[in-house]
Amino acid sequence: MITVDWGTTSFRAFRLRGAEVIGRYAGPHGILQVPPGSFASTLRAAIAPWLADGETRVLMSGMVGSRQGWQEAPYLPCPAGAAELAAGLVAVPFEGARVLLAPGLSIGGEVPEVMRGEEVQIVGALAQMGQDAVACLPGSHSKWARIAGGRIEGFTTHLTGEAFAALRDHTILGRLIQPGAAPDPDAFARGVARSADPGGLLHHLFGVRTLGLFGRLADAESYLSGLLIGHEVRAAAPSGPVYLIGAPTLCALYARAIRQCGGSSILVGEDAAAQGLAIIAEHAPWT
Amino acid sequence: MITVDWGTTSFRAFRLRGAEVIGRYAGPHGILQVPPGSFASTLRAAIAPWLADGETRVLMSGMVGSRQGWQEAPYLPCPAGAAELAAGLVAVPFEGARVLLAPGLSIGGEVPEVMRGEEVQIVGALAQMGQDAVACLPGSHSKWARIAGGRIEGFTTHLTGEAFAALRDHTILGRLIQPGAAPDPDAFARGVARSADPGGLLHHLFGVRTLGLFGRLADAESYLSGLLIGHEVRAAAPSGPVYLIGAPTLCALYARAIRQCGGSSILVGEDAAAQGLAIIAEHAPWT
Repeated sequence: MITVDWGTTSFRAFRLRGAEVIGRYAGPHGILQVPPGSFASTLRAAIAPWLADGETRVLMSGMVGSRQGWQEAPYLPCPAGAAELAAGLVAVPFEGARVLLAPGLSIGGEVPEVMRGEEVQIVGALAQMGQDAVACLPGSHSKWARIAGGRIEGFTTHLTGEAFAALRDHTILGRLIQPGAAPDPDAFARGVARSADPGGLLHHLFGVRTLGLFGRLADAESYLSGLLIGHEVRAAAPSGPVYLIGAPTLCALYARAIRQCGGSSILVGEDAAAQGLAIIAEHAPWT
Repeated sequence: MITVDWGTTSFRAFRLRGAEVIGRYAGPHGILQVPPGSFASTLRAAIAPWLADGETRVLMSGMVGSRQGWQEAPYLPCPAGAAELAAGLVAVPFEGARVLLAPGLSIGGEVPEVMRGEEVQIVGALAQMGQDAVACLPGSHSKWARIAGGRIEGFTTHLTGEAFAALRDHTILGRLIQPGAAPDPDAFARGVARSADPGGLLHHLFGVRTLGLFGRLADAESYLSGLLIGHEVRAAAPSGPVYLIGAPTLCALYARAIRQCGGSSILVGEDAAAQGLAIIAEHAPWT
């Protein structure tokens, strides 16, 4: 079968035999790059060799199932696991193969929460995490999920990655940053340490400016990164080990911040999405 | 005499007789718009009629006294009041008048603090505030100052205004905002209320997105503004009434946020800078 992790800005396809990845394809055509009405043709172009080879099952996750994607696969309420996600799959028309879209998850309440794509990565990481765990998926919109009884019980999102880019590129703090400079672990650690001080994040952000003004900051970008990730980790306040799911470089930064905040973490491989889709596929309505 | 509040992006000059403002001039030529070596000619062009009328004393505050300005008037340590600021004035060459630049204030420590321009506004507001008070000067870099014995004892800065603009204009939150929409007091109040919830600012920022996604937010810009100002006010945690110094519209937002957080505030007029410079001028070395 074929699994596709189709996000806002990226497209990653895997060919699986059982749970083993036997083929990979990655492209830049995230859903924002797909012209209206062209999702089927974009998918076909990307996986044509595998279709020609006889594959007839395609399972997709990520923003492709959002209102801005191919077709909306409505959010499911938490708690939810592989079985609930499989029951919420939505079929889209595609000549020569059955193509299913995975739903996202949401939590109601006064301020709702949503995820779309991360739930599949979490399911894929369950074999490593066990049935009860805390998972963190760092990124533009970082997710912290509580796993109980093998299902996602609840989660919170932090706008950390997007806020970092906006503050770095569009405030006075950016003037202190040397483009292309190598990350500085000491400056990162100072940022994480600062996040424990009183005064709040908006006050700490101005401190990036004054430290630079007084020549006390070699790498403002690493410090800013540590400051924001530190605030996120302290707000999430994980009580046990944190399973980190995502790109290795970013996960390594989170691992350092979590350790510095007194916690511990375990890295999960990057292929969690493909593995999660393979597990959901076992429950899927293929016929 | 003439006083000038010369900031990064604005230029405001006042002609005074005693403490009474008898003439005003405002222009867009902040220090970033002044070509190198052109500070004296820019000033002369702006106040030429008053010079021709016999004025020979000019006292200036703001970023014109920074390293990026006309000449640096080094930061003074806190506590400092009108007498200390007058003793720290720096003269610059100017044919036909004595031109003095006011210093800024700084606080040392692991993460330093700086202000430049606001200290003069605070001195100008002392007559209204009394000798012991808390002052807030909202803006791109909001200042909260403790006044004791008529001097500025300490202060903190919050990057609230700049963070607001960067998050509104350069993250996914901006997609929810209708340009030119009238501010919505209810959405602002909801943002202020949200700032009291656990989870931290980065988590609350993602909530702006989900509230919009679920159609529960009429005015995301007002909500975001309330959220950030609410975080700032709660971090500052003023114990008594807060004297708000600055532009009336922005001060009115802060007054509402402070009231909603259980505090009280008093508005100070916009001419605090001119009044502060008039007071400092009494101690100034004019000859």
